[in-house]
Amino acid sequence: MKRFAVFVSGNGSNLQAIIDACQKGQIKSQLALVVSSTDKAYALERAEKAGIPSLVFNVRDYTNKQSVDRDIVIHLKQEKIDFIVLAGYMRFLTPFFVKQYAMKILNIHPSLLPAFKGGSGLKDAFTYGAKVTGVTVHFVNEKIDNGAIIFQHAVPIKDDDTLESLEERIHRVEHKIYPEAIALFEEDRLKVKGRKVFINGGPSGEC
Amino acid sequence: MKRFAVFVSGNGSNLQAIIDACQKGQIKSQLALVVSSTDKAYALERAEKAGIPSLVFNVRDYTNKQSVDRDIVIHLKQEKIDFIVLAGYMRFLTPFFVKQYAMKILNIHPSLLPAFKGGSGLKDAFTYGAKVTGVTVHFVNEKIDNGAIIFQHAVPIKDDDTLESLEERIHRVEHKIYPEAIALFEEDRLKVKGRKVFINGGPSGEC
Repeated sequence: MKRFAVFVSGNGSNLQAIIDACQKGQIKSQLALVVSSTDKAYALERAEKAGIPSLVFNVRDYTNKQSVDRDIVIHLKQEKIDFIVLAGYMRFLTPFFVKQYAMKILNIHPSLLPAFKGGSGLKDAFTYGAKVTGVTVHFVNEKIDNGAIIFQHAVPIKDDDTLESLEERIHRVEHKIYPEAIALFEEDRLKVKGRKVFINGGPSGEC
Repeated sequence: MKRFAVFVSGNGSNLQAIIDACQKGQIKSQLALVVSSTDKAYALERAEKAGIPSLVFNVRDYTNKQSVDRDIVIHLKQEKIDFIVLAGYMRFLTPFFVKQYAMKILNIHPSLLPAFKGGSGLKDAFTYGAKVTGVTVHFVNEKIDNGAIIFQHAVPIKDDDTLESLEERIHRVEHKIYPEAIALFEEDRLKVKGRKVFINGGPSGEC
């Protein structure tokens, strides 16, 4: 059985969706560790409630970003973590870190990448006046929000949407498709050719 | 009755969809002029077949881009053109031109803007490995593919898609939604607030 870690920084609603998917058996791998960039993340309480060990690595306790990532990697290797799932982790992973887990780090982003990269993708799409935005699940590479795309799911922005109503709809999609993507990954059903990800034995590209 | 011009550079399949929509009465304004950037555009034959006058303005016959646009504007004013529809027009309109017809120029782009701007948006989305792309109808402002968005329609990219099969699906969507957007525009049903376009008396944001 594969072991994985979920990285968080905040509320952790995607972590919760992943915990639920593990309990239902939709995800077969063991969620062995939660890593947080801050001890203030509510996600840590979710982990505790579910009986999952957690560790906090705050960049302020280190001399630089690389040294945090080196420390995290040491702990991940100790815990025999096979792959990593980012769920609202608000720190950019160093190239050193990405190399250690090449094509074994997944991320979810609240827009249809490459549109609206960065930390406020959901709000940026709303402010831009886009009529369609969505959710992207992708592999993490050394550039921000740039790695090969596993899933994208479109979400319309309606004339009467507020940022809050849009956010709710986006989150609902996230909580559905992230466990699906993790399940495909753990079963080695994602085949990567260059920038393209193909799903073996089933359809991809939900819309 | 309003009078409008369609600007083309190539095959003109969107022009054809607009001609058809005029003949069916879906578009009420008069398609009074086709403007082409080259005399080689097949779109010119479509215009002729439909009995629509056309003019060719080739930048090579002018000293600079601004002088072409000045000449076009003179002809548009003579023809009492109220608004302009770009349909595969491969020239960037100068700020001078855009000012003459502020918020009266529509464009269609084969991607979900702001992703994949520029002349090869459809191919770029395919090559990038996006799982969802689409079509955008927007007002033209002084920046490339940047104006306020009227419609966006998502189109999935499937694992077994070729560039050609995707292209066909994108074009089908274009031919459907461009006449719809023109009909809303001519009826003054598009209300613009900053970057956002709202549709009076009906839903927007198809997906």
